[in-house]
Amino acid sequence: MEFTAPTAEQVLAIKVNAGIDEIAAHERFAAASPDLVEAIVEGIGAFASGEWAPLNRVGDVEGAVLANGTVTLPAGFAEAYRGYVEQGWNAISGDAEFGGQGLPFTLSANVIENLGAANMAFGLLPMLTVGAIEALTHHGSPAQKALYLEKLISGEWSGTMNLTEPQAGSDVGALRTTATPITEGEHAGRYRIKGTKIYITWGEHDLAGNIVHLVLARTPGAPEGTRGISLFIVPKFHVAADGTLGGRNDVRCVSIEHKLGINASPTCVMSFGDNDECIGELVGAENAGLKAMFTMMNSARINVGNQGVQIAERALQQAQYYARERVQSARAGSPDKAPVAIVEHPDVRRMLLRMRALTEGARALLYYTAGQVDRGTLGLPGAQARADCLVPMIKAWGTDIGCEVASIGVQIHGGMGFVEETGAAQHYRDARITPIYEGTNGIQAADLVTRKLGYEGGDVLIALLADVAAGAGDAAPALKALAEDCIAVARWMISDASLDDKLAGSVAFCTMCSVAVAGWQLLRQVDAAEGALAVTKPVIARYFVEHIVPEARGLKAAATAGADLLYALDAAALAG
Amino acid sequence: MEFTAPTAEQVLAIKVNAGIDEIAAHERFAAASPDLVEAIVEGIGAFASGEWAPLNRVGDVEGAVLANGTVTLPAGFAEAYRGYVEQGWNAISGDAEFGGQGLPFTLSANVIENLGAANMAFGLLPMLTVGAIEALTHHGSPAQKALYLEKLISGEWSGTMNLTEPQAGSDVGALRTTATPITEGEHAGRYRIKGTKIYITWGEHDLAGNIVHLVLARTPGAPEGTRGISLFIVPKFHVAADGTLGGRNDVRCVSIEHKLGINASPTCVMSFGDNDECIGELVGAENAGLKAMFTMMNSARINVGNQGVQIAERALQQAQYYARERVQSARAGSPDKAPVAIVEHPDVRRMLLRMRALTEGARALLYYTAGQVDRGTLGLPGAQARADCLVPMIKAWGTDIGCEVASIGVQIHGGMGFVEETGAAQHYRDARITPIYEGTNGIQAADLVTRKLGYEGGDVLIALLADVAAGAGDAAPALKALAEDCIAVARWMISDASLDDKLAGSVAFCTMCSVAVAGWQLLRQVDAAEGALAVTKPVIARYFVEHIVPEARGLKAAATAGADLLYALDAAALAG
Repeated sequence: MEFTAPTAEQVLAIKVNAGIDEIAAHERFAAASPDLVEAIVEGIGAFASGEWAPLNRVGDVEGAVLANGTVTLPAGFAEAYRGYVEQGWNAISGDAEFGGQGLPFTLSANVIENLGAANMAFGLLPMLTVGAIEALTHHGSPAQKALYLEKLISGEWSGTMNLTEPQAGSDVGALRTTATPITEGEHAGRYRIKGTKIYITWGEHDLAGNIVHLVLARTPGAPEGTRGISLFIVPKFHVAADGTLGGRNDVRCVSIEHKLGINASPTCVMSFGDNDECIGELVGAENAGLKAMFTMMNSARINVGNQGVQIAERALQQAQYYARERVQSARAGSPDKAPVAIVEHPDVRRMLLRMRALTEGARALLYYTAGQVDRGTLGLPGAQARADCLVPMIKAWGTDIGCEVASIGVQIHGGMGFVEETGAAQHYRDARITPIYEGTNGIQAADLVTRKLGYEGGDVLIALLADVAAGAGDAAPALKALAEDCIAVARWMISDASLDDKLAGSVAFCTMCSVAVAGWQLLRQVDAAEGALAVTKPVIARYFVEHIVPEARGLKAAATAGADLLYALDAAALAG
Repeated sequence: MEFTAPTAEQVLAIKVNAGIDEIAAHERFAAASPDLVEAIVEGIGAFASGEWAPLNRVGDVEGAVLANGTVTLPAGFAEAYRGYVEQGWNAISGDAEFGGQGLPFTLSANVIENLGAANMAFGLLPMLTVGAIEALTHHGSPAQKALYLEKLISGEWSGTMNLTEPQAGSDVGALRTTATPITEGEHAGRYRIKGTKIYITWGEHDLAGNIVHLVLARTPGAPEGTRGISLFIVPKFHVAADGTLGGRNDVRCVSIEHKLGINASPTCVMSFGDNDECIGELVGAENAGLKAMFTMMNSARINVGNQGVQIAERALQQAQYYARERVQSARAGSPDKAPVAIVEHPDVRRMLLRMRALTEGARALLYYTAGQVDRGTLGLPGAQARADCLVPMIKAWGTDIGCEVASIGVQIHGGMGFVEETGAAQHYRDARITPIYEGTNGIQAADLVTRKLGYEGGDVLIALLADVAAGAGDAAPALKALAEDCIAVARWMISDASLDDKLAGSVAFCTMCSVAVAGWQLLRQVDAAEGALAVTKPVIARYFVEHIVPEARGLKAAATAGADLLYALDAAALAG
């Protein structure tokens, strides 16, 4: 079915939760005027729904196909990508020096949201390119920037991240790909890359003129583990000093995965240096590769949390449409037996309200996080630290609710939801990758309790939660109570919990904090909502506070239970 | 990967939760001696894991295929079905008069559990046949029983249920298939059936010698709605009075659905009477068809709840295997940096414990329910009413946890979980139908609050919950508190809630009650557990009580919130 960009919702979140006007009050982001913001949100929404959404199903059914080393996408993708590049959407937040518009991350988050809600698998292509842009912007040499950034920012070329190897997934430090310095010949000063990377999103395709692979590898004699990893640029086609394209580099896609979902996104096994002629350039200092990757990790994780919002929005719209159209059964207790649209049945209303509350809550959290990132970029006090705390929340909870909302969407369709032609099942399948990649949600929760909670002895996170409690006030007592629960758990973790205890409670705690912050941010939208949103927002926010918040309070026992029970059985007894 | 039947777990649940020895103390079920019970559980477990489990993946990948009106299954299915029939597993609970063993429902539940855990899509074939057997046993004429039951009980023939039509899903009363009496010729006294049925599970296939379709249809002049529905036998091949097979009846599979999962189970669109020559026999009285269907609804719903346990067990075993085999990252805080099997990481342990607690809790609830069904069959006081209350719980919560456990199973696999070859994704896809069919889980919850809660003014359900509170006692205060919460919600629903209020809180209440009863039944296993289970069961039960029970308490606010908020927005505002 059709997709309509939720423009008014997004503008509200960008204004209230990101606080775009405050951000635009600073010279660096002065261009982000209210008019421009609305023009961007409307423009990308229209583009994404008009050009990318119609390709969502064919992308799922036909998928990306590898043949003779070339990955092709179904008809329409090439044109839709070209339109995206030509209209300049890829350049929203890129550096103005290289053709970008230099706008806030908040607005690039909106571009990503619209593209991905229209077509989540396709949306990964620009998402990955954004990561490459960020890495080169922060760590590339002037020559590298000059050579690569303009084409990446325009979208003419795309980017990839090559971290994972079969034995090195969550444990990046275990990677074995090698980079050997070249001391003579035309490539002197560069490196010969050799190894195999897996799960490389959009690792090969024919939509862009070149693919800039960013590859983590080890130089000879590098320290073991994460301290011996360096970052390299490995272009698919060699790039001469004047920017012209040369021949193929010795890197190829040897297979693509047969996946549960996001079938239009080729997930590649990439082989570097089969013929010992894969040439890469070092980015930044040797052995500083992981640090460079960390630079882009925050925005990459926010963008994956964004995908949770995307798939939730898409599934919501599909369920809304079906609930209005499908006529089945009379209302319970109604004197006449006339069947009604299922939207009139109480439990269908409950499901729709829940879908909306989770989706709108996650969007509020997303743009609140994006706004903190922009404040961090501006150097505003405390903003970066708060953004760091929010990243695991939006990544983990945003993707959890994406899966839940997609699942409720299937349920609202009844038997039709299980039939692939309907489309609801695709969202359910597509969504399931998001809690896994870019750091599993368990890793996000661990990041929250072992790193972010430790910022300033806990003060950063507790100040955020105190803001939630204050914002909830007497108007939303359940939310205030949840924020206080979160603070109590945080204090217990800081003072009394072992490392294992913290990790044991980490997922429950991360969910509690996420719901608390999202609920607060959703409440903040109520007073500012106008038009149709002035009618719906108070109801959605109240549902969130009265239904979803109490559930999150039910997690406190798990958050503070400690690790003893987890280790009461040995591995054989637990998993034998 | 391989599947091993959880025989010791099942025997424990059959003894403790079903109370098989008490059931076997009655003459009707005296054959269910401890030795026979163990022989059956071990035998079907060995058969299912040995013969049916290896076909699970090929059934998913190749699936059921319709060509020229014939549905074929991948190689191996025919032989595996023949083995099942020849070993007599289909006849466990069938009437002894027609070749069955006349054993308790509890034991047929175990056969179904093992078959479905091995191969959920394949397991639907005997599940549907059991439904047909039950309908004919209770409502068939002596001649119909003589003609059909023996072959159905042996499994030589299979059965189907034909209720749903495009406009008549949850609202069965809206069906339009017609049955016109035949007054002369060889079929005089029979009916001409005409109409289209959808979502017919195993509606066509070549594994059985005949397919006995049970079809709901309307006779001329029948009342509208559910009171004008009659039940008919429509065999795929005509059956002569001496039992010999004649030619094809005028019924055919015109298409099969392309589904999210259970691909080896053909979900058919069945066309009856394209040539006006579809002959059916009335079962029971005219216009009493829905009542006849209700006869088998309890066991069908329990069997679908059983599927939740099945897929959970299968997903659990796969995750356990992976968690032991996959080595990744050192333990947090460990002085040496040696990577360990991921089962050693706290959050993986949490996920595995959660999978086990939900699976074992649902199994305890399943066999407790099955035991009440058998007591009902024996006419023991109150048993049938208690079974009726338990049916929506095991159907709804059993299938909810099936989906959740399958999803955690994907998560434990990380990126591998999203790759189809691993197998974890298949469980996630297969599981998703179970909250939908045989009455959506929303309909189960509605059944609980609008029908079952009303039994004896609420006394039946409250007595069950009081048993939970008493069983929890001081040893499990959280469980006792949950049971008391459930009683409070029940009393509020009975005394103060409107019909809409009850429906608004129905799903939350159903989950709360299910968790309460499952927790109680799991606790009851602790003292009786022997061998390896004596080690694990106390830990699993404690995890359930300390982690899962408090979450369920978090649903109380939603259960008692009432319906006002659900109707605060009109349909256009809610779903516009």
